[in-house]
Amino acid sequence: MKFSAERATLLKALAHIQSVAEKRNTIPILANVLIQAAQGQLSLKATDMEIEVVEHIAANISREGATTAPAAVLYEIVRKLPDGVAVELDQNGDDGQLHLRAGRYATRLNVLGVDDFPSMGAGDFPHSFNLASAILRGLIDRTRFAISTEETRYYLNGIYLHATDVDGEAMLRAVATDGHRLARVQAALPAGASGIPGVIIPRKTISELRKLIDEAPEEIAVALSETRIQFTVGPVVLTSKLIDGTFPEYERVIPRNNNRVLRVGKKDFSDAVARVAAISQERSRPVKLTLEPGLLTLSASSAEQGVAKEELDDNRISYTAEALEIGFQARYLNDVTDQVEKEVEFIFADSASPTIVRDVDSPSALYVLMPMRV
Amino acid sequence: MKFSAERATLLKALAHIQSVAEKRNTIPILANVLIQAAQGQLSLKATDMEIEVVEHIAANISREGATTAPAAVLYEIVRKLPDGVAVELDQNGDDGQLHLRAGRYATRLNVLGVDDFPSMGAGDFPHSFNLASAILRGLIDRTRFAISTEETRYYLNGIYLHATDVDGEAMLRAVATDGHRLARVQAALPAGASGIPGVIIPRKTISELRKLIDEAPEEIAVALSETRIQFTVGPVVLTSKLIDGTFPEYERVIPRNNNRVLRVGKKDFSDAVARVAAISQERSRPVKLTLEPGLLTLSASSAEQGVAKEELDDNRISYTAEALEIGFQARYLNDVTDQVEKEVEFIFADSASPTIVRDVDSPSALYVLMPMRV
Repeated sequence: MKFSAERATLLKALAHIQSVAEKRNTIPILANVLIQAAQGQLSLKATDMEIEVVEHIAANISREGATTAPAAVLYEIVRKLPDGVAVELDQNGDDGQLHLRAGRYATRLNVLGVDDFPSMGAGDFPHSFNLASAILRGLIDRTRFAISTEETRYYLNGIYLHATDVDGEAMLRAVATDGHRLARVQAALPAGASGIPGVIIPRKTISELRKLIDEAPEEIAVALSETRIQFTVGPVVLTSKLIDGTFPEYERVIPRNNNRVLRVGKKDFSDAVARVAAISQERSRPVKLTLEPGLLTLSASSAEQGVAKEELDDNRISYTAEALEIGFQARYLNDVTDQVEKEVEFIFADSASPTIVRDVDSPSALYVLMPMRV
Repeated sequence: MKFSAERATLLKALAHIQSVAEKRNTIPILANVLIQAAQGQLSLKATDMEIEVVEHIAANISREGATTAPAAVLYEIVRKLPDGVAVELDQNGDDGQLHLRAGRYATRLNVLGVDDFPSMGAGDFPHSFNLASAILRGLIDRTRFAISTEETRYYLNGIYLHATDVDGEAMLRAVATDGHRLARVQAALPAGASGIPGVIIPRKTISELRKLIDEAPEEIAVALSETRIQFTVGPVVLTSKLIDGTFPEYERVIPRNNNRVLRVGKKDFSDAVARVAAISQERSRPVKLTLEPGLLTLSASSAEQGVAKEELDDNRISYTAEALEIGFQARYLNDVTDQVEKEVEFIFADSASPTIVRDVDSPSALYVLMPMRV
């Protein structure tokens, strides 16, 4: 195998590749990138056995063939080469090593056999559809903060993507929850996506996919089976196993009869939360919201440091319902208001029941927060 | 005590103060800032018993008095207040707490008694002189990378500052070493500094002082005894204990007879070091320099990954001495070339002896690197 490629092209592909390659190195070949020059095409591939990413890049192939080399080292080297240089990769088989040359820089990398490189085996994808990149980005960005990190509840360690009917309209929904808060975002179901199974996309896949979206063309092709999902983002194909579990019936935890409505500017609210929460250094510090018509008082206390409170009056908020006291973890309030553009709406029932949170300007997203006792 | 101050003024002072206050909290009052309003002046003070920082700020004092409150919490709160707001601090003694008010935000902070706030007791300073901020910054920035972090060699855990005579000229010198590399930087001895004792300024003091220099006026006042040093940087007075130990006779390790001179562009050299070192992930990875007239070859190898090398020919380097092979830790090469502006000069003896490194354009600094076997 021998080819040369532009440094910037190679670097961009290796950046995608090396973050999928396994770093813990328990199975050495999973730390490698599979480099294949065949049929006039050059491809790079990495896998951790859960996710597989393949990228085609432009290259000048002078001899076809394939090898595998350490992804992280290759990435580091190419990253440090000067911009604009041509990088030549050559494995002639004599010494078994992969030779990289760029100007007067040369390296020989130890390789591992192509035959040992594992294939995840994607199988057939009975469903496929195209999704606008901007839509997919919105589904991810507004739900991923709520993904659970508790490994015992593995079926919550991802985003649940499924098709559903909302008042007669077919919708694609993304949902994530960790039991303390829930995020549900929806978009019109794209053509070809009706009848897809509900699938749970793992956190790492979400994270790799999200990086690709920043450089994505307008549309992303999605293919799906009961056990696998595949995203084609320009020259990159990302295939992932799905989480084999049942996502909870999340609609049950979304309250229907909440009716005390608070509206407040996102910045006014989140700044006030930050200021009152500053009194305590605990991670799960609670912030109490005390509501009466035309007045929201935020407060927090710490046995060690003292107490803090801030008032937002009817120049800043709108609230006309009955008085109410309710507490939330400061960081859950922050996470959810981070999703809101300008104005946030809280819809409360009482101080012990789940609260609905919405972005006033974005009806496609809905959040639920569990209160904590204060 | 009652006063109001502009948020930005208070924030700037608290930023200096809170980084000196003790965070580990073994003695609770060391986590506090001492706030004193007396004789029409407001001052903030913090100490960790090794360093003490006092800052005077502009404030509207309506009742004199003093208290101590948690520095980190106060800093966090003031940081999160909106810019331009007036902050009122009030301790009326009724509830013993410090009340902070800013607009509709209010907090009550628990306080600790002023009498328990420790004083470091600076004593007299028999020596005092002024030093240009830019000179002090240069002395610190070009030596601090070489300060030892090994606690057993406590006398190397700082910068050694002393007066000396260089070819009949009185000089102020800063020296740091960790046994693997040494940095020595000098400037003309300022008026009033002749006869100062040699002192070792601790790492944390250097770090706090360095932050102050960024906002310093043109001159910094330095006062000195055998056991204390004091820097007056605008409205801030930083007093520190010195390290009670003997700095080694560093001149003995600076070689006198090295004569093989390599000159190379700083960027050419450090980029090449980074590229060849990328082959290995070890922290102490060695890079080998192979020199012959008109050619420098840098190389590194890793049993796991392979080998890498790069050549810099006589378009990039100047070397006319005998051939030589010598190895250094990649990170020591990086640290020292980071100090160099444009062109670096290495003066070698042989592959086992200390090497001198200089910035061609800055004769006031000299570095020594110990080679490692490769």
